[in-house]
Amino acid sequence: MISESSKRKISESTIHRLSLYYRVLSVLEKENKETVSSKELAKREKLTPAQVRKDLSFFGSFGTRGLGYPVMELKRQIGDILGLNRTWNVALIGVGNIGSALVGYKEFQRQGFQIRIIFDNDQRKIGSNHKGIQVADIGNLEKELKESKIEIVVIAVPATVAQYIVDDVVKAGIKAILNFAPVNLKVPEDVFLRNENMSMELEYLSFALINLQNGKRA
Amino acid sequence: MISESSKRKISESTIHRLSLYYRVLSVLEKENKETVSSKELAKREKLTPAQVRKDLSFFGSFGTRGLGYPVMELKRQIGDILGLNRTWNVALIGVGNIGSALVGYKEFQRQGFQIRIIFDNDQRKIGSNHKGIQVADIGNLEKELKESKIEIVVIAVPATVAQYIVDDVVKAGIKAILNFAPVNLKVPEDVFLRNENMSMELEYLSFALINLQNGKRA
Repeated sequence: MISESSKRKISESTIHRLSLYYRVLSVLEKENKETVSSKELAKREKLTPAQVRKDLSFFGSFGTRGLGYPVMELKRQIGDILGLNRTWNVALIGVGNIGSALVGYKEFQRQGFQIRIIFDNDQRKIGSNHKGIQVADIGNLEKELKESKIEIVVIAVPATVAQYIVDDVVKAGIKAILNFAPVNLKVPEDVFLRNENMSMELEYLSFALINLQNGKRA
Repeated sequence: MISESSKRKISESTIHRLSLYYRVLSVLEKENKETVSSKELAKREKLTPAQVRKDLSFFGSFGTRGLGYPVMELKRQIGDILGLNRTWNVALIGVGNIGSALVGYKEFQRQGFQIRIIFDNDQRKIGSNHKGIQVADIGNLEKELKESKIEIVVIAVPATVAQYIVDDVVKAGIKAILNFAPVNLKVPEDVFLRNENMSMELEYLSFALINLQNGKRA
């Protein structure tokens, strides 16, 4: 069990590394591997074994020198801290290009993120089903979010309207928002907002191609 | 102008912050703002002004105390280092859920990432146009990548086949790959590989909801 004071100290980049370990552990579990060393975890994610050991030290000292970490147990513990050993009620706002892709993205479901309801302002879409999920009128946002007991909202609307929509989402009492619109949104201090910027990794690649060529890796 | 030795020292997280600054500067340019302070840049991205000044110190000391940085000039310089003041020939492999969304993702085009060709193994799709872009047979990957002078490849295929495909992409001489498949791919040392993990930000939100509630921000 991880203490409250430890949780507060976990940085954003540590959380992201925990996500990576969780993914590797899921693969190892499927391959019926019982243990994994910090060296192997590090290699798979291009980190140092020291970094891996430091990250996993949050979970107590159950990694055994020479034997490594028990795969299933470590996956369960990381899953607990990341909130993946349960389901989350997710609403998607906007079912255009990106929104449609997200509805079909199996990884979300696999991790427990269940899209329960979709909102759109397109009269042709409202009232229909999109891959089995009801498309509701954005005009009924607050009411429907509450009735569907939504915990996390994913925003996939054009940048020009994203702030208006996020304001309504906040008014409805939602505390966790994932934004795909390419715009900086403002939310109150007690709301967690994350931005998914799909251009960012391409920008890293173009930086690398220009500046780090000749076999040099970042 | 930024020196070769400075470029080598730019970390991955600095590159990501440069992407963020570039986005804010684009907004400010549209709003006809001439200058921006490190304080304002910091506020928009929830960073400290000291961090912003440190990041931008790579670009020389043209920020003026009291006046701030010239928006257009700073945007141009960051665009140069990120390789955004030019176009890149991009190929997309796999035109399922995610692939289709990427073809319609206007941000890519706006940043100069032009999808020139799409590959798929579905005979119904091959030979057709997808939003104006030719869908080629994955069997002709190497030949078509060369003929289209592709510089960056985006992988949006199922996890089970991603490694086979990336091996062929590498054989065709491609040095920059963006992977959307939820799997850890192996590439040679001289190939830049980035992974887009769309679950990761949701995992951060679920972590935050479980562990950082009560008005505490990460």
